[in-house]
Amino acid sequence: MANVAKKVSWSGRDRDDDEDGRAGETTPLLNGTGPGAAGGVRQLTPSSFLRIGQLSNVDLNEDIHELTELPRQRPNEIPHNEKLLSLKYESLDYDNSENQLFLEEERRINHAAFRTVEIKRWVICAMIGILTGLVACFIDIVVENLAGLKYRVVKDNIDKFTAKGGLSFSLLLWATLNASVVMVGSVIVAFIEPVAAGSGIPQIKCYLNGVKIPHVVRLKTLVIKVCGVILSVVGGLAVGKEGPMIHSGAVIAAGISQGRSTSLKRDFKIFEYFRRDTEKRDFVSAGAAAGVSAAFGAPVGGVLFSLEEGASFWNQFLTWRIFFASMISTFTLNSVLSVYHGNAWDLSSPGLINFGRFDSEKMGYTIQEIPIFIFMGVVGGILGALFNALNYWLTMFRIRYIHRPCLQVVEAMLVAAVTATVGFVMIYCSRDCQPIQGSSVAYPLQLFCADGEYNSMATAFFNTPEKSVVNLFHDPPGSYNPMTLGMFTLMYFFLACWTYGLTVSAGVFIPSLLIGAAWGRLFGISLSYLTKGSIWADPGKYALMGAAAQLGGIVRMTLSLTVIMMEATGNVTYGFPIMLVLMTAKIVGDYFVEGLYDMHIQLQSVPFLHWEAPVTSHSLTAREVMSTPVTCLRRIERVGTVVDILSDTSSNHNGFPVVESNPDTTQVAGLRGLILRSQLIVLLKHKVFVERANLSLVQRRLKLKDFRDAYPRFPPIQSIHVSQDERECMIDLSEFMNPSPYTVPQEASLPRVFKLFRALGLRHLVVVDNRNEVVGMVTRKDLARYRLGKEGLEELSLAQT
Amino acid sequence: MANVAKKVSWSGRDRDDDEDGRAGETTPLLNGTGPGAAGGVRQLTPSSFLRIGQLSNVDLNEDIHELTELPRQRPNEIPHNEKLLSLKYESLDYDNSENQLFLEEERRINHAAFRTVEIKRWVICAMIGILTGLVACFIDIVVENLAGLKYRVVKDNIDKFTAKGGLSFSLLLWATLNASVVMVGSVIVAFIEPVAAGSGIPQIKCYLNGVKIPHVVRLKTLVIKVCGVILSVVGGLAVGKEGPMIHSGAVIAAGISQGRSTSLKRDFKIFEYFRRDTEKRDFVSAGAAAGVSAAFGAPVGGVLFSLEEGASFWNQFLTWRIFFASMISTFTLNSVLSVYHGNAWDLSSPGLINFGRFDSEKMGYTIQEIPIFIFMGVVGGILGALFNALNYWLTMFRIRYIHRPCLQVVEAMLVAAVTATVGFVMIYCSRDCQPIQGSSVAYPLQLFCADGEYNSMATAFFNTPEKSVVNLFHDPPGSYNPMTLGMFTLMYFFLACWTYGLTVSAGVFIPSLLIGAAWGRLFGISLSYLTKGSIWADPGKYALMGAAAQLGGIVRMTLSLTVIMMEATGNVTYGFPIMLVLMTAKIVGDYFVEGLYDMHIQLQSVPFLHWEAPVTSHSLTAREVMSTPVTCLRRIERVGTVVDILSDTSSNHNGFPVVESNPDTTQVAGLRGLILRSQLIVLLKHKVFVERANLSLVQRRLKLKDFRDAYPRFPPIQSIHVSQDERECMIDLSEFMNPSPYTVPQEASLPRVFKLFRALGLRHLVVVDNRNEVVGMVTRKDLARYRLGKEGLEELSLAQT
Repeated sequence: MANVAKKVSWSGRDRDDDEDGRAGETTPLLNGTGPGAAGGVRQLTPSSFLRIGQLSNVDLNEDIHELTELPRQRPNEIPHNEKLLSLKYESLDYDNSENQLFLEEERRINHAAFRTVEIKRWVICAMIGILTGLVACFIDIVVENLAGLKYRVVKDNIDKFTAKGGLSFSLLLWATLNASVVMVGSVIVAFIEPVAAGSGIPQIKCYLNGVKIPHVVRLKTLVIKVCGVILSVVGGLAVGKEGPMIHSGAVIAAGISQGRSTSLKRDFKIFEYFRRDTEKRDFVSAGAAAGVSAAFGAPVGGVLFSLEEGASFWNQFLTWRIFFASMISTFTLNSVLSVYHGNAWDLSSPGLINFGRFDSEKMGYTIQEIPIFIFMGVVGGILGALFNALNYWLTMFRIRYIHRPCLQVVEAMLVAAVTATVGFVMIYCSRDCQPIQGSSVAYPLQLFCADGEYNSMATAFFNTPEKSVVNLFHDPPGSYNPMTLGMFTLMYFFLACWTYGLTVSAGVFIPSLLIGAAWGRLFGISLSYLTKGSIWADPGKYALMGAAAQLGGIVRMTLSLTVIMMEATGNVTYGFPIMLVLMTAKIVGDYFVEGLYDMHIQLQSVPFLHWEAPVTSHSLTAREVMSTPVTCLRRIERVGTVVDILSDTSSNHNGFPVVESNPDTTQVAGLRGLILRSQLIVLLKHKVFVERANLSLVQRRLKLKDFRDAYPRFPPIQSIHVSQDERECMIDLSEFMNPSPYTVPQEASLPRVFKLFRALGLRHLVVVDNRNEVVGMVTRKDLARYRLGKEGLEELSLAQT
Repeated sequence: MANVAKKVSWSGRDRDDDEDGRAGETTPLLNGTGPGAAGGVRQLTPSSFLRIGQLSNVDLNEDIHELTELPRQRPNEIPHNEKLLSLKYESLDYDNSENQLFLEEERRINHAAFRTVEIKRWVICAMIGILTGLVACFIDIVVENLAGLKYRVVKDNIDKFTAKGGLSFSLLLWATLNASVVMVGSVIVAFIEPVAAGSGIPQIKCYLNGVKIPHVVRLKTLVIKVCGVILSVVGGLAVGKEGPMIHSGAVIAAGISQGRSTSLKRDFKIFEYFRRDTEKRDFVSAGAAAGVSAAFGAPVGGVLFSLEEGASFWNQFLTWRIFFASMISTFTLNSVLSVYHGNAWDLSSPGLINFGRFDSEKMGYTIQEIPIFIFMGVVGGILGALFNALNYWLTMFRIRYIHRPCLQVVEAMLVAAVTATVGFVMIYCSRDCQPIQGSSVAYPLQLFCADGEYNSMATAFFNTPEKSVVNLFHDPPGSYNPMTLGMFTLMYFFLACWTYGLTVSAGVFIPSLLIGAAWGRLFGISLSYLTKGSIWADPGKYALMGAAAQLGGIVRMTLSLTVIMMEATGNVTYGFPIMLVLMTAKIVGDYFVEGLYDMHIQLQSVPFLHWEAPVTSHSLTAREVMSTPVTCLRRIERVGTVVDILSDTSSNHNGFPVVESNPDTTQVAGLRGLILRSQLIVLLKHKVFVERANLSLVQRRLKLKDFRDAYPRFPPIQSIHVSQDERECMIDLSEFMNPSPYTVPQEASLPRVFKLFRALGLRHLVVVDNRNEVVGMVTRKDLARYRLGKEGLEELSLAQT
């Protein structure tokens, strides 16, 4: 694979020797008072800096050019590469900017008012739960009806043509129906909102990690997602409707908590207190948890999912609220579906998918079976790794060649048609007839079977995947022919692998479970043959373990997935074996390739921060990691300088250290605060400045509301007109900057910097020297660059993809 | 209640005005070179400082005297007070001191070695799980046999005397047996290891929070704890053996992870890498989780307990290890107990207590019941608050009057005798006879019942509390007379309340569950009467909800307790109602008084850090919160000065900022690092210093191992002899200090400081001014002082209790 990234294997502290030389470099780069000074202050991208560190007299500007032109050289070939970090992603700011305005507001609020805020938080969480549950109900009911309609039409057609021959018409009907439904689903995603593609779990992981993915929590995305999921499932793709619930819950949470919608252009003027990244993130965690909870009837699993995939600082109160939202969500779904199914009071549908009751007395496990389960975990890990590796190559192919929306739609239609064809051929060729046993099969296809019998392959293919999973878990021993299961596993494996990453909204949970359940059941049947039908070798139990192993091998979650599986089976007996299976699958899978979600995050070159810094990164210090030189502002700054800095496209900074503003001395003074690009934009927009001659005049006061109203989509600097006279005015930043930004000394090791950055959810971390003077800035990209590769510490390149 | 604490209600920023004056104060307080300078550098306790802030010309030393003498004035009356923070508790250091030695070691370790460390961590967690499970088995088996023996002896005696009269002999026998067993249990706790008293949960909470409770994780404590629990339960007290498992697991974890035991004076020379607070804490979390897991068969609940009660920074890998330890623990217990009970392969005893199988088909709930459950939550909250309030007054009484070990033993014996007497009288007076229905009653007492019948009150009193709970959950409707249940609830409530806080090892979980199950069942029976015996009003279900409500009202856990209850019932159907009940109980209970564990932590005046700073504390800044003046060391310091500082009893500091050591100028220079008392002690012990005349000589090198060998019990300064000549030597701290301590500027608000401190588990946080000069230090006590009281922000006093 062609690879533009430069691997650096750190062999020690060989770059420590220029300590004093570096510290001095920032001095001339602070903005002077003249407008011309702005040219020299752009931030260099770290990888160009690293080269400067080695060859100290290279021209900086050339270096920048070389770097920014890199992607342009091979624009169509490898715009994405897992050894790159994209510069296009901005970060979210999970640290409150505690400026004077903020503190004044907080101080004004008394204890009773805080209680009101707290109550509002709980109300929002309840609303998130209710709405997420309702959305899940909507999806479920619509899918059930549409899919039922489709299967009935096709079944009638097949039944008709089975008698008189010409089943190819049935195939054509089935394939055409699927392809056209999927076409609609794919068109809305590809042309209206591409971010709604896939399960949305990688995107939500990134969001909770602190990366801003454009449009990811918009109402429009939700609408497209919901319609897309319905159409994908009805279109017969090898997908599930569960994964997208997590994304849906997150969008609902983001929408409700902000009390307004950009897509609808409505502002309800409520919940204005929560209009900042920190609060919004907390609610989005709750939404994601509510989504899991509605999807699997797993409220605790939902909480753990949010924490395992998203959280950094664990807060008890927040966790309770998340739990509350999750519980409300599954309860709402349960109530509505129970009413819909006509048994209003019995609350028997806690989630979109319900694995059915595993009777633990009949299906308990014994100690001897544990090695068997571990072996299944190994198989799951290997198959999962194979799935991910195939999907990796497929995704690379897609990124290179299938990036036009039309092509994406065509591919989706192709997959839909192929899925129907494969299913049809498999059913057609299968001679596995089983007696109809009441209600366990929704659409029994008789085909060439005798009267009173149905085609067993059709239970698996001619059905929504959720139903097939439950059938595999619970059908009595003997319902499936081993040959049928084997063929089904093989076919479905490739179909599911091909399907994941299509431009449709769809989840990978259910297909994974289905593949695993199929080979797990096959495994159970073989075991039963080998042990001459021992009572303990119930194939349904092995189907469950296989499903866990396969899903674990693909997504590599452990704690949350264990709990989700436990809750979905409604039974804690299998907790220990499921944990063993999932852990084994994860360890084995990780040996080959990483989890599907992480893989896709990396393929998108997202600067994702993992839980800890790479273990061998103690040899790096903040001095080597930081971006430098850094653009600083003075406390009382000329408006023109601010505009120039913000307009400078080559340095797309979002935070600027504010330093002492004594114009009389050339001495550089210490750090005084930190101000964000968004704050400066609001200040410029509201013309918060005074003429230079009248510095004693008080500049216009702003309220926190002015900042909140602009959140989260601050206008670009180009849209703000500043006249030549205004450029000469002065702007006093003291009131708006955060006077106490977190700082680290230059000597701090990378793990130390990482821990501070990650634990507090920072966006900018100022590096200072012994005199509290700014020497650099650490941002998310500076930390995400370092990664533990096969040969030790690797450094990723940054690129404008 | 007499109260020496001073309440300060912060009305604004009225103390902000002395900004520049304060910053200068530290200048003269840096250590001079002469030995006399040491006298002026002691740290003032914050509350004296606060007065200095108001009256700036008070003599500092007088102020200290007044403060330290406060407890001496009323030594026997109120040594404890919930408005005080004790100075006797030290903190743990959950932030690695990244000095040169540490970094060199980390840099030497390559990727493969890190993998070995990681594998060791997993091995340790497995061992923690196995040992915790085995300890739980041991307790269970011994209790079962001893208690069985006791009940058989008493039963035979009662049966004998029922016929021929003279049952008072039986009472005497029973009471004497109980009192003598409890006496032994109480004596070992009171005289050998007082920290083993109670459930140990508050202590473990404190430990995980970062407070060092002496002896809490020693092997001796474990032995006393295990024996104590066995004796308390066998002695018939209203206690459970589940709570102490958490403490036991924590001790096991601390012991194994350090690879040595102080009690045994053995060092196995393994796991030396883990000999620091950070690593030890992680393992202790795993041990606590394994304890919960073994106690309730609740591995997920265990993980959540550790996180809800202990963790701050959530780390995915750590969580997986904790989960692994939990799973291994319940699995070990399950295997061993299954073998012990003779059904080796069926794994039917996941925990010490098992709530029995709730058949969800028969006992599902419907939507109409939800208001009923919420009402039960309210009742549980009120009863829990009553329990806590009574226990509060009792504890205050005990602290004042029952502080001699002999008295404590006598009280424990008294409670044991009273418990037996109450039980006997209740059984004697009860005329509630029930037919013997097979095995559900372990020791059916016939007493005055007809043949083939047993006394129903005896099921509740004449039994270990675990069995009584399960009976209340599962006995068929009609097994209990409402009168019996009512009397039992009332009596057991007061007995349990009296028992908690005795000098015995015992838990409060099971008594709480039992009280709740009793009134819950009573409630269910009443409901069944009211609704004319509707099918849904199964009293067992209401017993479960009552148990949850009562326990929730007392301990106020929600998420972890919900999961524990779910896992203990082996069934997720009741998740939603249990959550509702627990949340309601918590909200209602919190309205009156706080949770039992938090109450006891506060009664011990522990500087416990909650999850967030008080909501109204934005008006405080680091400048007002910090301790000042702070004792600083220079980078190259005179040995005599170091010794004097460490010996200075009035300032019992544990961390000292290191500042620039230019002896030629009087100018104060910036912060260079932070060094701990323990590190200085090791340096002095190993005589790591050079003569003043030969500063160019290289001082002796130490290895990290020298520090690890001394951990965690560093010798006191008094035990280190430093000669007069050595006092004049110089010591270079550069290599040993942490060169990049976390700092905050003076302007940072209290919530900001709190967040940094709590999220990173700090012990010392240096407050610096704009020039990076040290102006103060924030420690745990400075933050724990502020609390949200009824009338706004309160400030606790610090006292030497």
